[in-house]
Amino acid sequence: MKKNELNGYSVELGSNQALNLDCGVELNHFIMAFQTYGRLNKNKTNAILVCHALTGDQHAANTHPLTGKPGWWENMIGSGKPLDTDRFLVICINVLGGCMGSTGPGEINPQNGEPWGLSFPVVTIADMVRAQARVIEYLGIKKLFSVIGGSMGGMQTLQWASLYPDKICTAIPIASAARHSAQNIAFHEVGRQAIIADPKWENGNYSYKSSTPKSGLAVARMAAHVTYLSQAALRRKFGRRLQNRQEKTYGFGADFQVESYLRHQGITFVDRFDANSYLYMTRAMDYFDLAHENKGSLANAFKNTPVRFCIFSFTSDWLFPTSESREIVHALNAEAANVSFVEIESDKGHDAFLLDEPEFHKILSGFINGAAPQFGL
Amino acid sequence: MKKNELNGYSVELGSNQALNLDCGVELNHFIMAFQTYGRLNKNKTNAILVCHALTGDQHAANTHPLTGKPGWWENMIGSGKPLDTDRFLVICINVLGGCMGSTGPGEINPQNGEPWGLSFPVVTIADMVRAQARVIEYLGIKKLFSVIGGSMGGMQTLQWASLYPDKICTAIPIASAARHSAQNIAFHEVGRQAIIADPKWENGNYSYKSSTPKSGLAVARMAAHVTYLSQAALRRKFGRRLQNRQEKTYGFGADFQVESYLRHQGITFVDRFDANSYLYMTRAMDYFDLAHENKGSLANAFKNTPVRFCIFSFTSDWLFPTSESREIVHALNAEAANVSFVEIESDKGHDAFLLDEPEFHKILSGFINGAAPQFGL
Repeated sequence: MKKNELNGYSVELGSNQALNLDCGVELNHFIMAFQTYGRLNKNKTNAILVCHALTGDQHAANTHPLTGKPGWWENMIGSGKPLDTDRFLVICINVLGGCMGSTGPGEINPQNGEPWGLSFPVVTIADMVRAQARVIEYLGIKKLFSVIGGSMGGMQTLQWASLYPDKICTAIPIASAARHSAQNIAFHEVGRQAIIADPKWENGNYSYKSSTPKSGLAVARMAAHVTYLSQAALRRKFGRRLQNRQEKTYGFGADFQVESYLRHQGITFVDRFDANSYLYMTRAMDYFDLAHENKGSLANAFKNTPVRFCIFSFTSDWLFPTSESREIVHALNAEAANVSFVEIESDKGHDAFLLDEPEFHKILSGFINGAAPQFGL
Repeated sequence: MKKNELNGYSVELGSNQALNLDCGVELNHFIMAFQTYGRLNKNKTNAILVCHALTGDQHAANTHPLTGKPGWWENMIGSGKPLDTDRFLVICINVLGGCMGSTGPGEINPQNGEPWGLSFPVVTIADMVRAQARVIEYLGIKKLFSVIGGSMGGMQTLQWASLYPDKICTAIPIASAARHSAQNIAFHEVGRQAIIADPKWENGNYSYKSSTPKSGLAVARMAAHVTYLSQAALRRKFGRRLQNRQEKTYGFGADFQVESYLRHQGITFVDRFDANSYLYMTRAMDYFDLAHENKGSLANAFKNTPVRFCIFSFTSDWLFPTSESREIVHALNAEAANVSFVEIESDKGHDAFLLDEPEFHKILSGFINGAAPQFGL
């Protein structure tokens, strides 16, 4: 295990036992990068795995080494916070296919010393979870107290519960779904086509050092970012207010605040994220369909599950609407699983899971504090 | 007045009286292209003006000269249809700034013989309407029986009622709004940035004959197209069905039907639409804010209006939701205007106004048939 400032910890895995990917490829060598917060107890029973979303990474609760900004879930992870680092060891692992140190299209293929690019195998949510399980095993943790995540992180959480029901006590999928909807696939396809249309993408063989498809990636980010907010949040935050001007300019500059905000989102994103990785992450989400993996029945994914579930959705989230969470709840109820479901009133859209939502945090704390003693904590 | 197969009729205007645009520019020469269906009666009282949407054109009810496909509103316009050509003369004019024969960025600037490109002035919805009014005047029509349109066409309809309340008997804005929302500006900005990111755009100075920013325009179209549908329509039409394959390919081809459909939408669009025109059309919609034009009060836009309004929205339209139509209704009621409002139950999203929606067509026919005798028809 190594440690550096950019990636946190990283471990090399696969040499003893290859990772068999869903696409058929075997990885004999892969690196997984992760951060930890808090301390593992003596019995190694107090670990919580946080799964990050599409454009997240392992820097959930520390200053991001590239952007200098706070971690993406600092309001959730820390001393006295819902994922209380005084009681728990919180682990966050950069997913397989990601671009913050874990093996992905931007990393070197050890077989030929070249960057993988598009020769990197297309990975699935299940592949990501199997790779995470190797890290957990490496750390000597037999059973996680909890797996938790929002959006793509929620997909991983559901996949953990399905693949490893005996290795986790509780599962907390937030603002997520058991399969990616047609609308969401459509939005992802728009983003991918924006990247692919950028001549600097060069069929995925761009030089990571000199010229990357930043324009295409920025457009992809902008398109996605609109879907993370809500009509109401956009109206409240920006409305039709102009950006540093009194009058319309009758041109194509960023007259409106919302345009300026979106452009900023696009521009800053490309400094910390890899275009090819974006293709792989979106594809993994599109392919996710837990019912399909289980003979067409979502309930089959959770047969006789001992896991305690707590599922969250947000009223204004139209990307992963409450109806998607309800389908998971129905499947779990059909298996008489132990499931709580909470729909949080919020006008902040899909992004609500990342934001200060007091009711959300309070209920989540309650669930964790209630479940901990049941599992000897 | 000329006529050709590509544009239908076209008239040259502005030489007697310049068109004063909102941005301050005066157009001394501009061409407007249009199609007509049906016949004008002796008193010239039976004309209906159909206003087209963002990517529409004047070919509302004839085979499109470029695509060979039926007109975009053939289910609405024709003998025995809601806009009955046995009774009415239906006129549809390509908007100012458009790309089917009316003056726009792709046309030649008569002052220098070069294509306008980005030197074309940014036009507003009000500019479009003032230009249309010149065509109506040219045709010798003093008062239109009706102005009707969906989406951007609905904005023009509202603008007609506001600018020329004495020149129209009825106004039928469909799936529209009195001002463009922050979310919609955001989606438009994504499309514009996709075009601008295409190196072939060349700051708007691309050669229209040799190389146009097709890739960027296709991405813009794809992004917009997702917003024209609904979650339910996408699920029903495509779901997660694969495209001509039994299994996922673990690649970035169009595995899913919805991806294939979207790509097709992008590819076919660029053959009939101009990238610069797309920038201008989206900007005109973004700038639209009828309350702002009227001292901050939407009711002011309709002061003592004699116009009869019939306003339609669709339940699953999240781009122009019913709440936007309600705001118009509230403003009209505050002026004691004659307004009917109908929300049509439909799962087809914003596109519903273009589709066969029997209830919509039936109610619209009823409104027109009921209003006609009141105006001497």
